[in-house]
Amino acid sequence: MNHGEIEQLVETMAKKARTASLRLAQASTNEKNQVLLGLADLLEESSDAILAENEKDLADGRKNGLNDAMLDRLLITPERLKQIALSVRQVSELDDPVGETIETITRPNGLEIRKIRVPIGVIGIIYESRPNVTIDCAVLCLKSGNASLLRGGREAFHTNTIFASLISRALEEGGLSPDAVQLIPTTDRYALNCMLKQDANIHCIIPRGGAGLIRFVAENSLIPVIKHFEGVCHVYIDENADAKMANEITINSKCQRPGVCNAAETLLIHETIATDLLPQIAQSLAEQEVELRVDEKAAAILGKTEIPFQPAKPGDWTEEYLAPILAIKVAPSLEAAIDHINAHGSGHSDAIVTADETAAQKFLSGVDSAAVYWNASTRFTDGFQFGMGAEIGISTDRLHARGPMGLKELCSYKFTVTGNGQII
Amino acid sequence: MNHGEIEQLVETMAKKARTASLRLAQASTNEKNQVLLGLADLLEESSDAILAENEKDLADGRKNGLNDAMLDRLLITPERLKQIALSVRQVSELDDPVGETIETITRPNGLEIRKIRVPIGVIGIIYESRPNVTIDCAVLCLKSGNASLLRGGREAFHTNTIFASLISRALEEGGLSPDAVQLIPTTDRYALNCMLKQDANIHCIIPRGGAGLIRFVAENSLIPVIKHFEGVCHVYIDENADAKMANEITINSKCQRPGVCNAAETLLIHETIATDLLPQIAQSLAEQEVELRVDEKAAAILGKTEIPFQPAKPGDWTEEYLAPILAIKVAPSLEAAIDHINAHGSGHSDAIVTADETAAQKFLSGVDSAAVYWNASTRFTDGFQFGMGAEIGISTDRLHARGPMGLKELCSYKFTVTGNGQII
Repeated sequence: MNHGEIEQLVETMAKKARTASLRLAQASTNEKNQVLLGLADLLEESSDAILAENEKDLADGRKNGLNDAMLDRLLITPERLKQIALSVRQVSELDDPVGETIETITRPNGLEIRKIRVPIGVIGIIYESRPNVTIDCAVLCLKSGNASLLRGGREAFHTNTIFASLISRALEEGGLSPDAVQLIPTTDRYALNCMLKQDANIHCIIPRGGAGLIRFVAENSLIPVIKHFEGVCHVYIDENADAKMANEITINSKCQRPGVCNAAETLLIHETIATDLLPQIAQSLAEQEVELRVDEKAAAILGKTEIPFQPAKPGDWTEEYLAPILAIKVAPSLEAAIDHINAHGSGHSDAIVTADETAAQKFLSGVDSAAVYWNASTRFTDGFQFGMGAEIGISTDRLHARGPMGLKELCSYKFTVTGNGQII
Repeated sequence: MNHGEIEQLVETMAKKARTASLRLAQASTNEKNQVLLGLADLLEESSDAILAENEKDLADGRKNGLNDAMLDRLLITPERLKQIALSVRQVSELDDPVGETIETITRPNGLEIRKIRVPIGVIGIIYESRPNVTIDCAVLCLKSGNASLLRGGREAFHTNTIFASLISRALEEGGLSPDAVQLIPTTDRYALNCMLKQDANIHCIIPRGGAGLIRFVAENSLIPVIKHFEGVCHVYIDENADAKMANEITINSKCQRPGVCNAAETLLIHETIATDLLPQIAQSLAEQEVELRVDEKAAAILGKTEIPFQPAKPGDWTEEYLAPILAIKVAPSLEAAIDHINAHGSGHSDAIVTADETAAQKFLSGVDSAAVYWNASTRFTDGFQFGMGAEIGISTDRLHARGPMGLKELCSYKFTVTGNGQII
């Protein structure tokens, strides 16, 4: 396809999505759930076909020299497919956020104003190599009454395509328009540019992928973007921290799954307890094979032990390692720790460990992040852990949604106003 | 200043605003109110100086050939200044939205999660010629705990500058940093471009002005923008409408103040009552000197009367006249009216007049607009009328804020999570 054809294609798809979204916004919970349950069945019934398409992507990936981690991200196994179908059924069991009255206001002039939760409309999802995102995102958009336009990565093209065709079938069998979920059928980069200009028909863009993709989308989109950016998360150990708890929370925040956005990247420790506590915690981290990058004061303390460490460079305080590496800094005070986090963090998830409630309240209120913890691991920042039942991501923006983004956060609202002839 | 200097200046101001915002987010309601009350006093005390600066803007405007309407937008009179000071005092009386617990979730593992309303952070306000916007916006941002960076229009430069210096004084006298409200001290267009790239320090941009300005901002901003776009609003008269009410709501929606975004631009009327009712309503509109631009069916009806009208062109169904002009279309059904509004409207404010509750509910739920009315004028879409006490504008976006945007909508939220050592 040439550029003109791609432009035309994307515009036509976006218009169809907009039309489908108006109908989908009116669909009953039962209608939407029937589509989801139908899709879960179709995914299981089509296992052989899905694995065959997935094998094409894997073969292309091997040919193109993808590394093992990247191939693993592409891979669909029978077990993973079962998990995907299960998660679709779980979304069908979640409460439908659409139609809920958020607020009722009766005005002195007799007008009755209701603020009602409604779908956003059309959501554009832009993602990279994991094909399960096709199902996950389509399903969450569908349950929240939003039409979606999906733009997946080139590497997963065959798998995404069969997933999208099964979603279409489930929609049709459930009596809804297949235009409610559409996959852009080309991986030409130009299609992404066209999609980001469709502000007349697409109401929100959610990019799911690395920092490079997110920045490209934010820079080129005329459509509001909800960014799910990096997590440079901190654990701060206050002078009144319980030593065992401090150790456990640090290890869990850093090591339980280092490659995710809510893992800790920097440990801050109060000066008055650093001499006693830092060697113990550093020892635990060393046992987990975590590389330590430390400031001068921490180096002075650890220099008296056998624990290996490196001096931190300025860039270490702002880096999202996504790896078993931890920056460590000794903080002269609670206030210094809060200032460090606000200056160097990414506003994602930060924890204080302390037995002192006053210090904790200062930290909870002073740290300007989506989720701030007192005596708990940063790893809890997650839609499931927060009781939302599911999440489409964790927003690092401050508008619309901040932190885990579930079904309610995939909604907007409208005002309905009932009168008996009022004029102004 | 050359481009490099402007870039440096705007970046420095944005960084200062970010720092000030962290402190301002922690300010007590009383601290913020003292600044507001101090500002109101300063505005009244400085009346002579303000009017002198305003006269400079007016003189420049006359020299540059501004028309009377534009000069009137610039003009500050003693009476208008009193009104501005009064509105500042009124904002001091509004509830402080910051710190409110929106939701509490206790998880099975004992974690207590609180969703708490917090300021957005730093808000950039970009506006055109009305200098009172400097005060209005600064005050709403301040009360909601947000630092603001203001970029006003060239025409009001002197008035904006003295207003900003009075705000600085009020902040300092109230013990808050003057960096919490800063006016960009140059009207060079390049400063606007620089401001829109400051996504590390500015969290939200609100443009207040014409469609051209808003589009420029949306196209060039790396920062999320909340758009306050045009209102192509409709009144639909259903077959079961009360004739007197239909007439009153149409006249009020169109004529009470034609130049505002919540004024009606199109009248839709159901076919079965159009023959009887349209001539009456058209007569009332003609008495108000409203120009009628009508479709073929309406022309056939009005052709039998003496009422003047023009045939509507395709562009009439999407135009925001902001003037005493009304497009009129005969709709074959309720569904056709809903479809017309969703296809041609701007999603702002639309009304149905009907005695039939089923029809009304279909309309309220099917019309995809920020505010949908049953038997009331579209003119009520307004922060004051909705009981918000004030508004910074009316959002035509669907993310974060839709419809009137008050103090709560100038806030984000954060999660605070309290545990006793929980790890995942």
